[in-house]
Amino acid sequence: MVDRSARSPKDSRSSPSGSPTLEDVAREAGVSRATVSRVINENRNVDPAIQAVVRQAIAATGYVPNRAARSLVTRRTGTVALVMSGAGHEELDGVGAEEVDGPPAARSPFDSHILADPFFGRAASGVVGFLRPRAMHPVLMLADSAGAREQIVSHLRQGHADGAVLVSTHPEDPLPALLADAGLPFVLFARPARPVPVSYVDLAHRDGARLAADRLVARGCRRVATIAGPLDVPASQDRLAGFREAMARHGHPYVPSVEGDFRQESGEKAMERLLTEEPELDGVFAANDLMAQGALHVLLERGRRVPEDVALIGFDDSSAATASRVTLTTVRQPVEEMTAEMTRLLLDHIENPGLAPTSVIFEPTLVVRRSA
Amino acid sequence: MVDRSARSPKDSRSSPSGSPTLEDVAREAGVSRATVSRVINENRNVDPAIQAVVRQAIAATGYVPNRAARSLVTRRTGTVALVMSGAGHEELDGVGAEEVDGPPAARSPFDSHILADPFFGRAASGVVGFLRPRAMHPVLMLADSAGAREQIVSHLRQGHADGAVLVSTHPEDPLPALLADAGLPFVLFARPARPVPVSYVDLAHRDGARLAADRLVARGCRRVATIAGPLDVPASQDRLAGFREAMARHGHPYVPSVEGDFRQESGEKAMERLLTEEPELDGVFAANDLMAQGALHVLLERGRRVPEDVALIGFDDSSAATASRVTLTTVRQPVEEMTAEMTRLLLDHIENPGLAPTSVIFEPTLVVRRSA
Repeated sequence: MVDRSARSPKDSRSSPSGSPTLEDVAREAGVSRATVSRVINENRNVDPAIQAVVRQAIAATGYVPNRAARSLVTRRTGTVALVMSGAGHEELDGVGAEEVDGPPAARSPFDSHILADPFFGRAASGVVGFLRPRAMHPVLMLADSAGAREQIVSHLRQGHADGAVLVSTHPEDPLPALLADAGLPFVLFARPARPVPVSYVDLAHRDGARLAADRLVARGCRRVATIAGPLDVPASQDRLAGFREAMARHGHPYVPSVEGDFRQESGEKAMERLLTEEPELDGVFAANDLMAQGALHVLLERGRRVPEDVALIGFDDSSAATASRVTLTTVRQPVEEMTAEMTRLLLDHIENPGLAPTSVIFEPTLVVRRSA
Repeated sequence: MVDRSARSPKDSRSSPSGSPTLEDVAREAGVSRATVSRVINENRNVDPAIQAVVRQAIAATGYVPNRAARSLVTRRTGTVALVMSGAGHEELDGVGAEEVDGPPAARSPFDSHILADPFFGRAASGVVGFLRPRAMHPVLMLADSAGAREQIVSHLRQGHADGAVLVSTHPEDPLPALLADAGLPFVLFARPARPVPVSYVDLAHRDGARLAADRLVARGCRRVATIAGPLDVPASQDRLAGFREAMARHGHPYVPSVEGDFRQESGEKAMERLLTEEPELDGVFAANDLMAQGALHVLLERGRRVPEDVALIGFDDSSAATASRVTLTTVRQPVEEMTAEMTRLLLDHIENPGLAPTSVIFEPTLVVRRSA
């Protein structure tokens, strides 16, 4: 390891022109300029350990490859898009109702719901964290209207970015099909509701739900209910099916459920309904942390102690899991790792246009806190 | 308004080649191609109302101007960077300790704290919302190490982006000075702790603190304390000074305070200390919602009813304000509007390189919920 202790952040710009050069990276990494160049151009004939050293040196020096020069070699821009697609939160609630509110730009300001979700920051972290040692940065795009989707497709088609990492929050989102039709490289977060031949990363949702069921049963819960996510979303279907299946294995043939929409308010309403229908319940599994948080508020308001009277388990391990005094036991979805892997897959597809679609499924873990 | 009701999202790609054209925008807006072109190239001799119509048409059609063609006219890339700078959360805690953990890329995974903060999503919303009708998208960058800062400066210097919207969360962040030294256009969120001749947007923090003081006094609170933010941050200084000043005007010469670090845990610790030192307190102002949330948990655990026994007011109106059962009365900081304005200022500076730095100060409002 090169001793960098004597350098202040400012004078680490070691070249006189002010910008770190390929030489600086080569010196920092202890390799030749040609090796640095091969790593930058993603030539596969470089030992992975040396690639790692060079990438660390790129990050340490702050070197930015000249995009124009690199594009000549690779015919790529060195840019990828991070697309958060929330089609449906308003637009698709009433199908064909697109004209009701006027053009998207006239809405005030737009569907900021997607970016306000704590999930977004975790997703962005994984992408930025993977790209940075490669001297790349994602272009952030939001798809929440037909016009926005068109803009994204055109943007990619014109070669402003080499491909897209797409996080879509609505099963009816037309963007995956638009990108696939246009032959543009992209990778999805989670299996699409409608089959599209595209690579995706996902979580073993059934296994996650089983972890929750096992925990509730191990605590001695005997009357267990569940708050499901929107059942047109594959992840919600899997979590519900996995939970019911695991409970059945424990000898509980029937699990009452109420469907929510992944927002806190829907968790409150679902919990109220469950308490009315099953006043004796002693365990609840909610399909995400925000709904679990809503359920928690209702349980405490109705005088139920959590976990003593009712044990409660969420899903995601988002910031919502630690927002309340009774912190949530939850099934962790490693979002940062998942979006980093998406980005890795995307670069792979960009480099090898003929590559067949693939899927990478992550294993959930149970994070035990106070609520169960 | 053009009737778009008969178009499905997919067939709104009205040109045969698949990408919307300048003609499509002109038709949608009901103006000439030349007018669309002038708006795209940010020619100022276009009536603002017509500019708005054209921008709506760009958003509605999904048109993306050809960047290369536009660059020839404007000598700009049409890209701006959204930089989240968190220098200090780890690195500057021990000054000169940069070598301890090895190069930034070796850290696992990196300082994702900045992006996990709910503030980030709101900041990104404002930037994306402003750029989108202009067919622009921000490049997302994270500055949390000397290497990352170098990369950002080099990236901008090489013309990969025309300028930066910079949200810096640490008063010792060297990035503003690095960007200023390099002569790169950027706009800051909040007044910098060390004077830099650069445009910024900020909030009238003192006025916000006064709103909190007025509310607590109007509720009849007589023993009021405050949890301050880190006092090397100008916003924290202003909130504390403004709160004390307003309380003094109400005849309360002394307001006990404990300094936190804006995180929830620090609010818990501060509240515990305040309750020990001032067991009779009946009102608390916390300098952000996360610390208020921590304070709320401690108050409820100690058997204090909120707001009946202790009234509590936060600051920001972030998602933390509605995360708990006792929702927080809080001073709203209009982050989305502020970052949209930053982006407007940045485009102004990019277009007019000689423009003098300016500041835009937003007015806070009090959002009344349950806690006070």
